[in-house]
Amino acid sequence: MAYSKHNLADTIVALSTPPGTGAIGVIRLSGKEAIQIVNNVFDGKDLTKQESHTIHFGTIKDKNEKIIDEVLASLFIEPKSYTKENVVEVSCHGSDYIIQQLIQLFIDKGARMAQPGEFTLRAFLNGQMDLSQAEAVADLIASSSESSHDIAINQMRGGFSQKIKDLRQQLVDFASLIELELDFGEEDVEFANRDDLKELVQKIQSVIKGLLQSFQLGNVIKNGVTTVIAGRPNAGKSTLLNALLNEERAIVSEIEGTTRDTIEEVLNINGIEFRLIDTAGIRRAQDQIERMGVEKTIEKIAKSTVVIYVFDVLESTPKDLWNDIDRFLQGSKILTANSKQIFVANKMDLNPYTQPTDYYKQDLISSDNLITVSAKNQMNIEYLKEALYNLVVDNPNFIEQTIVTNSRHYEALQKSFESLEAVLFGMSTGVTSDFIAMDIRQSLHFLGEITGEISTDDLLGNIFSNFCIGK
Amino acid sequence: MAYSKHNLADTIVALSTPPGTGAIGVIRLSGKEAIQIVNNVFDGKDLTKQESHTIHFGTIKDKNEKIIDEVLASLFIEPKSYTKENVVEVSCHGSDYIIQQLIQLFIDKGARMAQPGEFTLRAFLNGQMDLSQAEAVADLIASSSESSHDIAINQMRGGFSQKIKDLRQQLVDFASLIELELDFGEEDVEFANRDDLKELVQKIQSVIKGLLQSFQLGNVIKNGVTTVIAGRPNAGKSTLLNALLNEERAIVSEIEGTTRDTIEEVLNINGIEFRLIDTAGIRRAQDQIERMGVEKTIEKIAKSTVVIYVFDVLESTPKDLWNDIDRFLQGSKILTANSKQIFVANKMDLNPYTQPTDYYKQDLISSDNLITVSAKNQMNIEYLKEALYNLVVDNPNFIEQTIVTNSRHYEALQKSFESLEAVLFGMSTGVTSDFIAMDIRQSLHFLGEITGEISTDDLLGNIFSNFCIGK
Repeated sequence: MAYSKHNLADTIVALSTPPGTGAIGVIRLSGKEAIQIVNNVFDGKDLTKQESHTIHFGTIKDKNEKIIDEVLASLFIEPKSYTKENVVEVSCHGSDYIIQQLIQLFIDKGARMAQPGEFTLRAFLNGQMDLSQAEAVADLIASSSESSHDIAINQMRGGFSQKIKDLRQQLVDFASLIELELDFGEEDVEFANRDDLKELVQKIQSVIKGLLQSFQLGNVIKNGVTTVIAGRPNAGKSTLLNALLNEERAIVSEIEGTTRDTIEEVLNINGIEFRLIDTAGIRRAQDQIERMGVEKTIEKIAKSTVVIYVFDVLESTPKDLWNDIDRFLQGSKILTANSKQIFVANKMDLNPYTQPTDYYKQDLISSDNLITVSAKNQMNIEYLKEALYNLVVDNPNFIEQTIVTNSRHYEALQKSFESLEAVLFGMSTGVTSDFIAMDIRQSLHFLGEITGEISTDDLLGNIFSNFCIGK
Repeated sequence: MAYSKHNLADTIVALSTPPGTGAIGVIRLSGKEAIQIVNNVFDGKDLTKQESHTIHFGTIKDKNEKIIDEVLASLFIEPKSYTKENVVEVSCHGSDYIIQQLIQLFIDKGARMAQPGEFTLRAFLNGQMDLSQAEAVADLIASSSESSHDIAINQMRGGFSQKIKDLRQQLVDFASLIELELDFGEEDVEFANRDDLKELVQKIQSVIKGLLQSFQLGNVIKNGVTTVIAGRPNAGKSTLLNALLNEERAIVSEIEGTTRDTIEEVLNINGIEFRLIDTAGIRRAQDQIERMGVEKTIEKIAKSTVVIYVFDVLESTPKDLWNDIDRFLQGSKILTANSKQIFVANKMDLNPYTQPTDYYKQDLISSDNLITVSAKNQMNIEYLKEALYNLVVDNPNFIEQTIVTNSRHYEALQKSFESLEAVLFGMSTGVTSDFIAMDIRQSLHFLGEITGEISTDDLLGNIFSNFCIGK
C-alpha cells in the first residue's frame, strides 16, 4: 500500500459502524469534496452553506430519483474534524442494502473507498495526532478489558508520546552541541560536556529500560493470558473452570443487549483477561485416540502463559501428575520453560482435614503456587484468582505507569537503547565526536519512529493496514 | 411487555449501531432527561445550553473521574427528533468495553435500558408516524433486496397509510350519516343513500381485494422464495447452482468491506431473492444413510415455494424423475400441492441435437416450465432466471402498486373486507340501520388497527418486541 500525495487528495468513503443489521449505520466521507458529494444527492438544505458541527435531515435519491433512505447528515468543516479535512457523517437505517447503495452512490459521485485506517492516517498526516496516538486508536477499539482500555486511552491522549518526546528533546539538545563541535573541525572545542552527556545518556537509558520492562505486562494486558487448565481425568477441571467463570458470567449478562460474541472462557481478574482453556485429562493413554487427546493437551500447555494443574486431593499428589506429564514429554523441558505454573488441590470439601501444604512439601512446590480449593463449593476460588493475578502482574499500581503494549514500540526502544550503549562505549574508548554524534542521531531516529516524526510509506502501510475500514 | 405511561416518562438508552467492533458506535438516549444525563458526565460545553441539531466534542468520565472515551454528542431538542423527545446520540469508539461502560454510566445517572423498538414506539405514540410506518422501519432495516427496500421505504414514508386512511375516511363519512339516522330514532329518515353506500362499499372492497391479492407477492418480496434444486445424482444440481450464482457473487464482492454474512445461496433476480437450496440426489436408496438423505430432500421440497427439478438430458426423462419421487412419497401429493415447479433439462452441451421440448410432450409438462440449459457452459441460464421470476411475479410493474407485505395488515384487511360483506348482506336483507352502522364501525376498526388509530398494549407489544434494541 502506498500513501502517495495523489491518493490523499481524494475524498474517501467507508462504513464506520460495525457491519451487520442494526438500528442505524454511519457512513463517513472525508476530503475536499466530501460535503459537495453528499450535497449532490441530498434532498434537504444546501449542505455547502451550513455551519460546522450541525446536523441536517434529508433524503438521498439514486440516479433514477428513487429514494434510497431518509438520513441525517452531520457536517464537520476543515480543520474542525477528526481528519482535519471536510467530513460528513451520513447516519442511515442500518440495512446492508441501504449502506451498500449509499456507498456506491457516493463513489459514483466522485468519492473512493477508504483503505483500512485511512481516516486515522489522514488525522496523523494532517497533524491531528502523532503515530503512537494513531496506533492507540486501534488498540482502544480492540480493548475489551479495563486495563487495556485505560492504557490505550492514555496513549491516545498523548501520555506515552509526551514521554518519548521529552527523552528525544533532551538528546536533540545535546546532539546539536556535538554537531556544533564538528563545524569547528580541527579546533578541538568541546561545547558538550562529556560527563553531562554520559549522565544524560544513562538517565535516558534507565527510562527506556523501564519502558522495555513494562512490555511483558503490556502484552499481557493487551492480549490476555493464555491459561490452560490441566490435570488427570476427574480431577475437577471443568468444575474449576465453571467456578472461576461463575461470577463473571453474571456480570456479563447484566446489561441486556450490549454484550455478545463473548468467548465464554475469558475470565477477567482486576482488568486482566485470562483466556481459560479446558483440556482432556492427562493420564497414561489407553489407546491411540486417548493418546492423541493427551498430546493435544501437552501442545496447549506448551503454548500457554500460565498452566493451572488441578489434582484431586484425595487421589494424587502434584508429583504424580508431574510424572504423568514427564512420561508424555519424554523428558522434554518445554513445559517448564514456557509457562508459569499454579497447582490447585481440588475437592477439599471431601477431605477437610488434609493439609496439602504440609503434605506436598516433599514435591518441592512453593506454597505460594499451591492453592487448596473446592471448586464445587466455590471455596478459595477468590484466593486462586488473586494468585493467578499475582503470577502475571508484579506491580498492582501499573495503571499509573507508562506501559508499552506495542511490539513496534518495544523494538524501536530496544534499538534506541543499543545506540545509546554505543554512545557510552564510544565515549569510554575516546572515539571522535562525529561517531558519537552519529550514534546519538541513530538513537533519536528510533525514538522518532515511535511518534512518527520519522516515518516511511512502508511503516505507515504496515501500521494502518491493520486498522478496520472506516476508522 | 406493557407500555404504561409511567414507562414512557423514563429516559431510555441503547446502542443503536450493530453490536461488534467497529470504528464508531452510537449510543442513543431519548426522554425528558436525555440531555441532562449526558451533560452530567460530559467534559466539554454545557450541553443543556446548546441548540438542537448541533454536535459537541468532549470526554466522558466514570465515577472515579477516569476517562472512558472521547466522544461526539449530537443533540436533538424536542420535538425536533425521531421520538419527538429530547434525544442525544453519543458517538464513541466502537469497542464493546467502552459501549458497555458508557451505557452503564448513563443507567447509573438515571436512564434505563430501552426495550426493543422503544424509540420507534415513542415516535409512534408521539405522533411522528403511524403504526404501519413504524412497522416499515423494521422492514426497511431488514430489507436486503431492491424490491423489499422500495416497498418498505414507500410504506415508511406513508404511501400505504395514506391509502388506508383514504378508505377509512370515506367509510367514516358514511357511518356518521347512518348514526345520525339512529339519533332520529323512530322517525324513519334516511340521510345516507343506500345505493351510494352500496356502491362505496363495493368500491372499497375492490381496493381491499387488490391489496389482499398483493400479499402473496409482498411475502415473496419480503421473505424471498425458498427454491429447492432437486434431481437424480449427477444430474448437475450443484453445477446449476453455481451457474445461477455466478454473476451474483461477482457483484457482491464489488464494494469492499460493505457486504458480509451473506448466505451464499441467495440469488437475486430483478430484486426478488431466491434462496437456493441444493439437495442430495433423489434415487432408489441403496442403504439406510442414503435413504435418510433422500427423505431430507423430500422434506425440503415439501417446504419450498419453488422446486427446480434438474435432469440429465441424456439419461432420464422428467417422467423417470417423477416416478422416483413418487416412489419415495409413497403416493403422497404434498409436493405438487405446495410448490411451483420448473423442469430443467441439463447437459445440453453434450447432446445439442436433442429437442427435449418435443421429446417430453408425452410427459404432460407444459413447455413453459421446461427449460433446456447447459449449466456447465452457462447456456440459457438467463432464460431460466426469467422463468423463475415469472413463476412468482405475475406483474413486473408491481413496484408502482401498493403491496401488502405484513401478515398483520393482511389479516386486518381480510377482517375489514368480511365486515363490509356483512354490510352488503345486511342491506340486501333489509336489516335496521343500527346493525349496518355496527358492521361499518367494525370494518373501520380493522382498518384503524393497520395505521394504529386503534391499538392495544398487546398489539404494540407484539409489534415492537420484534424490533431490535436501539431502534
